[in-house]
Amino acid sequence: MPGQSGDGRRRVVIERVSPEIDCGRFPIKRVVGEKVIVEADAFADGHERVACQILYRQGNEEVCFSPMEPLDNDRWRGEFRVTTIGKYQYTVEGWIDCFQSWWDAFEKKIAAGQDVHVDLIAGVKLVESAATRATAEDAALLRQWAQRLRQSKTDASATLIGPDRELLSLMRRYHDRDLASLYEKQLAVTVDRKKASFSTWYEVFPRSCSPEPGRHGTLEDCETWLPYLASMGFDVVYLPPIHPIGRAFRRGKNNSAVVQPDDVGSPWAVGSNEGGHKAVHRELGSLEDFRRFLSKASQHGIEVALDIAYQCSPDHPYVIEHPEWFRTRPDGTIQYAENPPKKYQDIYPLNFESAHWQALWEELKSVFEFWIDQGVRIFRVDNPHTKPFPFWEWIIGKIKEKNPDALFLSEAFTRPPVMFQLAKAGFSQSYTYFAWRNTKQEITDYFTQLTQAEVREYLRPNLWPSTPDILPESLQVGGKAAFMVRFILAATLGANYGIYGPAFELCENVPLQPGSEEYLHSEKYELKHRDLHAAGSLKDLISRVNRIRKENPALQSNGNLRFHETDNPSMICYSKATDDFANVIFVVVNLDCVHTQSGWVRLDPASLGLDATHAFQVHDLLADGRYLWQGSQNYVELVPESLPAHILRVRRWVRTERDFDYYF
Amino acid sequence: MPGQSGDGRRRVVIERVSPEIDCGRFPIKRVVGEKVIVEADAFADGHERVACQILYRQGNEEVCFSPMEPLDNDRWRGEFRVTTIGKYQYTVEGWIDCFQSWWDAFEKKIAAGQDVHVDLIAGVKLVESAATRATAEDAALLRQWAQRLRQSKTDASATLIGPDRELLSLMRRYHDRDLASLYEKQLAVTVDRKKASFSTWYEVFPRSCSPEPGRHGTLEDCETWLPYLASMGFDVVYLPPIHPIGRAFRRGKNNSAVVQPDDVGSPWAVGSNEGGHKAVHRELGSLEDFRRFLSKASQHGIEVALDIAYQCSPDHPYVIEHPEWFRTRPDGTIQYAENPPKKYQDIYPLNFESAHWQALWEELKSVFEFWIDQGVRIFRVDNPHTKPFPFWEWIIGKIKEKNPDALFLSEAFTRPPVMFQLAKAGFSQSYTYFAWRNTKQEITDYFTQLTQAEVREYLRPNLWPSTPDILPESLQVGGKAAFMVRFILAATLGANYGIYGPAFELCENVPLQPGSEEYLHSEKYELKHRDLHAAGSLKDLISRVNRIRKENPALQSNGNLRFHETDNPSMICYSKATDDFANVIFVVVNLDCVHTQSGWVRLDPASLGLDATHAFQVHDLLADGRYLWQGSQNYVELVPESLPAHILRVRRWVRTERDFDYYF
Repeated sequence: MPGQSGDGRRRVVIERVSPEIDCGRFPIKRVVGEKVIVEADAFADGHERVACQILYRQGNEEVCFSPMEPLDNDRWRGEFRVTTIGKYQYTVEGWIDCFQSWWDAFEKKIAAGQDVHVDLIAGVKLVESAATRATAEDAALLRQWAQRLRQSKTDASATLIGPDRELLSLMRRYHDRDLASLYEKQLAVTVDRKKASFSTWYEVFPRSCSPEPGRHGTLEDCETWLPYLASMGFDVVYLPPIHPIGRAFRRGKNNSAVVQPDDVGSPWAVGSNEGGHKAVHRELGSLEDFRRFLSKASQHGIEVALDIAYQCSPDHPYVIEHPEWFRTRPDGTIQYAENPPKKYQDIYPLNFESAHWQALWEELKSVFEFWIDQGVRIFRVDNPHTKPFPFWEWIIGKIKEKNPDALFLSEAFTRPPVMFQLAKAGFSQSYTYFAWRNTKQEITDYFTQLTQAEVREYLRPNLWPSTPDILPESLQVGGKAAFMVRFILAATLGANYGIYGPAFELCENVPLQPGSEEYLHSEKYELKHRDLHAAGSLKDLISRVNRIRKENPALQSNGNLRFHETDNPSMICYSKATDDFANVIFVVVNLDCVHTQSGWVRLDPASLGLDATHAFQVHDLLADGRYLWQGSQNYVELVPESLPAHILRVRRWVRTERDFDYYF
Repeated sequence: MPGQSGDGRRRVVIERVSPEIDCGRFPIKRVVGEKVIVEADAFADGHERVACQILYRQGNEEVCFSPMEPLDNDRWRGEFRVTTIGKYQYTVEGWIDCFQSWWDAFEKKIAAGQDVHVDLIAGVKLVESAATRATAEDAALLRQWAQRLRQSKTDASATLIGPDRELLSLMRRYHDRDLASLYEKQLAVTVDRKKASFSTWYEVFPRSCSPEPGRHGTLEDCETWLPYLASMGFDVVYLPPIHPIGRAFRRGKNNSAVVQPDDVGSPWAVGSNEGGHKAVHRELGSLEDFRRFLSKASQHGIEVALDIAYQCSPDHPYVIEHPEWFRTRPDGTIQYAENPPKKYQDIYPLNFESAHWQALWEELKSVFEFWIDQGVRIFRVDNPHTKPFPFWEWIIGKIKEKNPDALFLSEAFTRPPVMFQLAKAGFSQSYTYFAWRNTKQEITDYFTQLTQAEVREYLRPNLWPSTPDILPESLQVGGKAAFMVRFILAATLGANYGIYGPAFELCENVPLQPGSEEYLHSEKYELKHRDLHAAGSLKDLISRVNRIRKENPALQSNGNLRFHETDNPSMICYSKATDDFANVIFVVVNLDCVHTQSGWVRLDPASLGLDATHAFQVHDLLADGRYLWQGSQNYVELVPESLPAHILRVRRWVRTERDFDYYF
């Protein structure tokens, strides 16, 4: 005999539970301290009242409960908070609330002056039954109530209408859930440490850190840059691959097929006879140097993110030791990377369709494990969209089982479903299309999707105005103002962002050729020597903005992003606020890198916890100006060459005990 | 070692398959001959081409395949047709299309003038591998191709660019699906006979069919009405419960608590000492009379729908034989139906939380089986929303296992999630809120939801302008015009509709009291005697509209409903068209029952398969007028007291061989 969960008497239906990714196939993501707001449709046949609650637990700990409250149309909502990194599970349970149903009917009958003699006894039985489920103390109280109800036969209404809420709240603690329906799926949460959702990245090539022009920089040289990075407020330093670089088919400067003897090659051509993915490029230093670099960075409050690029130069030891992990062409040679008609003979892709895929997966896992053993906890994964999704789901799952503090940034610039799938498969953060979203409409549409649609539950954007591969046209043509605009957008639209430095703060903007997004003299193929203290560096602006980010919790989340209308198509305005509105930030940016722009910003004060009838102060944390705003329309003017943006903190009126008004 | 389906080399992801109801928990519905259009996101890592197809099967028959074609953004679409009643299953499979991927690269290399010597051999291997999967005939062809490719080394491009499509289409028949990914869910279709989606109902109380006023009508009397029903074009006659009516607490006329000896009682107070749900009320006739009624109806092309109301009068035999199926009050009496402060002492609800629920379920199933044995195949189920959903899912499933031609109409007027859930649980058709949707906006919103949103996949609306329980205010105040308007809306908005006759065609519209939706002298509590040929009867209009419905396949579906703008808020316009646009119907209705209304109807000719540059004839099938329409704006005027609507069939220009234009 079928019926839900085998017992046909479980009458409550629970459906449309949210958040739920692909029918529960993938976990949602949170960081420690965040809430999970759960909603569900819950209803039953008939006219009785329904009650429901969230069931959740951390790992294999005991199940906890959190009540749900009714919204409209049989929808219910509740929440719980995640407090430990690792995995949580949640689901929803609903049941017929017999006592509340009895109570409602009882009140109506009393109001209609009906005889409730028999009904009262039915109520007493429900109370007595609850007493058998209650703590000793509450059971005593419940039995007292049962007694009182029994005796109230003659004057039921008088006895009851008074102290009813007390009995009701007591009864709510001891629901009869014998015939409760449990939602059929257990949904999962991956809980990361805070850095997964709030981080500030700086990408640097250690080989360009030498103080002497022309000399190959080392990890030791890079150490000397740490105070500079720390002073600007970065907390993650991301190093391109630090492994031995192949010599076969090495690319010359500007990606030339003709190579000079002193050309240093691309760090992404991983592996030589000196070693592969577990070795350190000899010219950068030793494994010991690397460990010291980690420790020095840590002293500056900076974590090291390592680039993991699962591909091999033809010199990689795997090529000789494991030819079965590569594709072989009919002529017996190993298949190099291609995007016909382009050939990348310096790169051998791994063949994930190899019959020996299991050994390959294990080996690649051991690469992560090797660097975790050295102390690395953040990985920037190169081109994950060219390796199978099941592989990522497995390897990230395995690594996080033992090291739930490990974080993975997905470097994929491809079609949306593919980028989303990588995030679902487990990546903690994801590169985005930010570099190509320039207009007000583009930015509004894209960030509304990223922060308001379902994708927000599993994809954490990490915004980069540029990378060694991407010098967007907007930076090529917009001068320093463009760098400022794109930087401020990245740092305030995204709780996670990064810059490719020092190319970025020094506003390097010359492309290989017109129409190309490659840098001329790209650092990917040659050493660079730069003056970090050159005039025109954005380092002071960067320091200021990163300090603002650290001091204002509103900027440390994304789900709170809201766009506000302006009457000028070159001016964009958005806000971020904490749940309690204690911290409210408005950002207004002039997207026009040439002309001064001004206009009216429209906002709904009430939606930001503001009293529309009072003025409120906005404090520009960038330029330290203070303005008095009032109501829903306020005027802004921004000059691109000085500061093309305001980052405004709302300073609210507070009425104190002595009835004076203060800002805080 | 995990990975999708255990093999980590299955690289294609399949997700967002549609239609899919609640993660595949419930089947979609179709009738024989209809299509299932399946869409899915399918994509893989890397840059290779993906292919995918639908897998489907009827019952436990062999699996069939249907190709899917790419849309935008990694979305794919295909379809299959259901041809047999019962259950179908479908799912989606995707794989890397090695040959197409090879082919694309190969073409690009040839275009770039590269040496393709080695690539060619790789292609040959793919062709030879396909030959091992092919029929003998195709294998021979493929081997010839392999041979030709091998020999074309010296002049690859010339040999290939010519006859390429032939090889490609041959290779498409023999994909290498060894590493295909199968979508993880099998989705189900309930396939019903055509009547589930296109039916025309007439509700009649046989006891009111007596030719002599005051005499209790019989099933035999009702037989004499069948020619009348058939002449109007009805194909389902629905009888309120035909079982013995209880005497305890019987309600008098107008639902009075005071009962007269000759009061006939409500047919929904099921059961007396003469029998229960498997007996025929003695005054209606015998079981044999009922079987003869079925057979006579069938001769008129009419099926009988029986009302199943799972509730008991206090006299029902179950009350004595199975007191364990009812709730007992603390004073030992059986709990009657209540909606406090209202009491329905003539009705005992069954207790679906009884410890003996399994025996109860089996007994209720035997009720359906009993009537199926008599020849009934359509059941109108009374108040299903007061019985548990698992019960309905089980009982309908069980009945349809043996009798896949059985149909169930859900009579629930309650909150949307509850109505939707009953449809999901298996009901073939559902009553709707149609009776309370009167304005243009209300009708447009409601029917757009019912016919365009996901609910269309599982809920088939059955529209009733009135029922014995519901005399809507619009009919009370709008006179005959209101009856015409509401009738035409029901019959053209819904492929399934019904009327409560003859109250409806005779325009009975007097409520019990102002503000009530109950009829004065409701047929639920007394016998009626009516003159079917009274002046003012809508029978001719009904006959005409039902003939139009039968002759125009566009009106036999709902998913094809589209609303068109008019510039008059009292005029509503919508169309229905067959997939091939061979049959296109426009309906224009004046919703104002008092005043003549006119205005411009706006439509997009192209979306209806019309050539916007040519005039087209619209033929009013109601009044037999013909008009020439052209372009997107056309004028309409409708007079409520004569005919408040047009039902316009588009007569299209057809260019014949002799180059004359004809309408067809």
